[in-house]
Amino acid sequence: MKTARLKEIADLVQGKVVGNPAIEITGVSGIREAESGQITFLANPRYQADLESTHASAVVVAKIIGDLSISMVVVEDPYYAFAQIVKYFHVPPYCSLGISDRTVIGTGVEMGKDVSIHPLAVIGDRARIGDRVTIYPGSYVGAEAEIGDDSLIYPNVTIRERVQIGKRVIIHSGTVIGSDGFGFASHQGRHEKILQIGTVVIEDDVEVGSNVSVDRASLGKTVIKRGTKIDNLVQIAHNVVIGEDCLIVAQVGISGSTEVGHHTILAGQVGLVGHIKVGDHVIVGAKSGVSNDLKSHSVMSGIPVMDHKTWLKTQAILPHLPEFRKRVMALEEKIKQLEAQLQQDKNRGK
Amino acid sequence: MKTARLKEIADLVQGKVVGNPAIEITGVSGIREAESGQITFLANPRYQADLESTHASAVVVAKIIGDLSISMVVVEDPYYAFAQIVKYFHVPPYCSLGISDRTVIGTGVEMGKDVSIHPLAVIGDRARIGDRVTIYPGSYVGAEAEIGDDSLIYPNVTIRERVQIGKRVIIHSGTVIGSDGFGFASHQGRHEKILQIGTVVIEDDVEVGSNVSVDRASLGKTVIKRGTKIDNLVQIAHNVVIGEDCLIVAQVGISGSTEVGHHTILAGQVGLVGHIKVGDHVIVGAKSGVSNDLKSHSVMSGIPVMDHKTWLKTQAILPHLPEFRKRVMALEEKIKQLEAQLQQDKNRGK
Amino acid sequence: MKTARLKEIADLVQGKVVGNPAIEITGVSGIREAESGQITFLANPRYQADLESTHASAVVVAKIIGDLSISMVVVEDPYYAFAQIVKYFHVPPYCSLGISDRTVIGTGVEMGKDVSIHPLAVIGDRARIGDRVTIYPGSYVGAEAEIGDDSLIYPNVTIRERVQIGKRVIIHSGTVIGSDGFGFASHQGRHEKILQIGTVVIEDDVEVGSNVSVDRASLGKTVIKRGTKIDNLVQIAHNVVIGEDCLIVAQVGISGSTEVGHHTILAGQVGLVGHIKVGDHVIVGAKSGVSNDLKSHSVMSGIPVMDHKTWLKTQAILPHLPEFRKRVMALEEKIKQLEAQLQQDKNRGK
Repeated sequence: MKTARLKEIADLVQGKVVGNPAIEITGVSGIREAESGQITFLANPRYQADLESTHASAVVVAKIIGDLSISMVVVEDPYYAFAQIVKYFHVPPYCSLGISDRTVIGTGVEMGKDVSIHPLAVIGDRARIGDRVTIYPGSYVGAEAEIGDDSLIYPNVTIRERVQIGKRVIIHSGTVIGSDGFGFASHQGRHEKILQIGTVVIEDDVEVGSNVSVDRASLGKTVIKRGTKIDNLVQIAHNVVIGEDCLIVAQVGISGSTEVGHHTILAGQVGLVGHIKVGDHVIVGAKSGVSNDLKSHSVMSGIPVMDHKTWLKTQAILPHLPEFRKRVMALEEKIKQLEAQLQQDKNRGK
Repeated sequence: MKTARLKEIADLVQGKVVGNPAIEITGVSGIREAESGQITFLANPRYQADLESTHASAVVVAKIIGDLSISMVVVEDPYYAFAQIVKYFHVPPYCSLGISDRTVIGTGVEMGKDVSIHPLAVIGDRARIGDRVTIYPGSYVGAEAEIGDDSLIYPNVTIRERVQIGKRVIIHSGTVIGSDGFGFASHQGRHEKILQIGTVVIEDDVEVGSNVSVDRASLGKTVIKRGTKIDNLVQIAHNVVIGEDCLIVAQVGISGSTEVGHHTILAGQVGLVGHIKVGDHVIVGAKSGVSNDLKSHSVMSGIPVMDHKTWLKTQAILPHLPEFRKRVMALEEKIKQLEAQLQQDKNRGK
Repeated sequence: MKTARLKEIADLVQGKVVGNPAIEITGVSGIREAESGQITFLANPRYQADLESTHASAVVVAKIIGDLSISMVVVEDPYYAFAQIVKYFHVPPYCSLGISDRTVIGTGVEMGKDVSIHPLAVIGDRARIGDRVTIYPGSYVGAEAEIGDDSLIYPNVTIRERVQIGKRVIIHSGTVIGSDGFGFASHQGRHEKILQIGTVVIEDDVEVGSNVSVDRASLGKTVIKRGTKIDNLVQIAHNVVIGEDCLIVAQVGISGSTEVGHHTILAGQVGLVGHIKVGDHVIVGAKSGVSNDLKSHSVMSGIPVMDHKTWLKTQAILPHLPEFRKRVMALEEKIKQLEAQLQQDKNRGK
């Protein structure tokens, strides 16, 4: 088991030790689950109270906490520091398993060095597999598909023919890359299939969750650019282009030919219609429906979306609509009375 | 083929025969599809009219129906009685198929008695498989995972390393248990992966539908407690805890670290944000969005949720908003006129 | 590589050449991606500007475009014409691969002629596979299931026991047909499973996207009728009946026993509750929630749905609710003032 002095950990994350730099750290854990010898972290202030009862020997924090009995490592971004520490303790060195003799390998496959191809994986004809690629059982790589160096394909993934996958890409189980787009020409009441002859390009450092569907383009390419992370059960339709470093949260659906800029966040269960452009650094709140282009840096919510702040106000009013209706009815009644009274006064005045 | 006298069926479900207890029942079927000799049931009153034309020989009901020509079995809960009768006619005794020689089995696997491991299943190193476990083709059980006695894993399921699955658990096809949680520390515009080193615990008697994603915890465990039933295409994020005997309907999404109590029902396409607590015996209506803690026994709907009754009233008003706006505008106009008139009267009075 | 004179292409799609009928067409492509020699199409007017810079040699259009330098094929429906042209260039003749010796085939299987059963596919006992059926690796066909002629089953599909699939059906990867419906009888706080002893019938010419879940009926059948097309990640619950030629867009959920007519369109992320009837030629807008029967030819949106036009007006008002509330408050204030004034006048008058 890997261990390290607290000082070494602090150096790793460019942090400062407050307490005893010589403590031996044996691993990393959550505040509540940590045992003596382990380091934990505080990124979300709502868990600060838990620090009093933690068994951890040290904690990574953003600023010194006054009356804490355990040692601290103070860093700018505890969550990022935590990511590095977990990696330090838990990423084993890559170890090639070679190619199982129970793998099905087509003809003309270009196989990289030091790969790990598990039993019951299928590699289609003329596919190109990069160096140190891992492909787990039950995964299918179609003909002429490419998988870049150091990519990791979990069990039961389907990568259809000609799909191109970059380096250091992670694809989780049950995910399908390159299924046909949903394209039909309706003619005399029947839906004629439009062959989906395009493909999918997934660039370097993308991670795709489990049970995700990414459709191949009808013509051209569906593209997911470098560094974008996609959660589970997401639908990416044909010819969609997603920019770099986006976060696409679970159960989002993006319709055909829509383009999303870079560093944009689509929260859970958001839906985007087809043929629109969403800018860079946009945030769309959970469950929202987007039916028009969105400018860069906008923060939007609702069905269809509006400015997030307006949406918050709007939603706060909704439960009061019934009472609201009564108030309007009361106003109408009062106006009637006032009018009647004025008429009466007038008549009397005559 | 198994058959039974109507009296035997009635005894099985603790019901009372009204009609001929000696009829021979040959099977169970729907009201419309039933043939002579079969028993059917009436749980939803909307189908009562169909009873007049049914070919069934008997029907399970909650109370005696006056002019019915066929025999009845009267029970407190016809739906539950139906569940028992279907089981009586259709559950074959378990029969071990043994371990196919086309299964891939790792080293150090602890295999229970009388298992049924189909061809093309994969069991990872040091996994523990209980007695009478069935694993269908294409399913993957990762290293050190555990599956309890009498559990049933349908084809093409992925159970990742170290996941713990209880007894009598059913997992449907395409489902992924233990994929990585969606955890990234954003640093200088890039999303750095946080290793998801935790696991998933699924307790006894849980059923998980098809194409469900249950992510492993970043640290610690994602937990689904005893007796909870999960429908298809549901997303359960890392570190979620779901209590006992819940019903989680199709396409629900539950975000990271959220806790759900016991006997809670989340209807279809509901979304829960992360880090909240939903109580026991809560009901959340279809398509709702929950962004705050919910008290036990609450019944909620909407985005974000409000009391279900308020929501019903609110939604009934929504289609009238355009008319409503006109009414407010009319009021504004009338007030103006009244003010003008009063001013005129005043001027005249001077 | 297949080529054709422009005149031949025009004849194929019953169109009229405007320009040079003798041009040799070497393939089909998108407006932006097309190279010299290729034909492209304009179905969506928003892309007309792109025609000025296209490298295509010809374009399929609905009406003559004035100052276009390239040849045109004028047809009534360019999108349908495009579907036919793509088919002409890209559908290779079917070629049987036979049955891999690495396929798992049960006993008593009826195998059609000229099939293509890839390695690591599993065909259960007594299954019936039609002529020219293709089954890719990792797909599972349960016992006594039937697959009609010319159907295409992509990798990692699960078709459970007794499911019936028609002719020319396409099923994409990760999809599960015939998993158990979500049926439980709640009894003394526990959910008792109701055996799902029915099945699924998928008729001819249906296409089912990737990661779709279609549950088997509790009793009887779940039915998807001829020509209906289902997108990715859709949930079809037990005993649902979907009529002919429907379009069910991604992430839609249809609850148990609901019936949908023919030629109905459910847009993305729509949800239907159980036990309702949706008519023919209905359109339900994206993200809508349907909780009651819908008449044929209705166009609906919202949660719950209302007439689409009303919904558009309603949603346009939502962002103005905060301002609206202020207006009502202002009215209340003014009424108070008017009342006070009138009272004053009255008192003075006395």
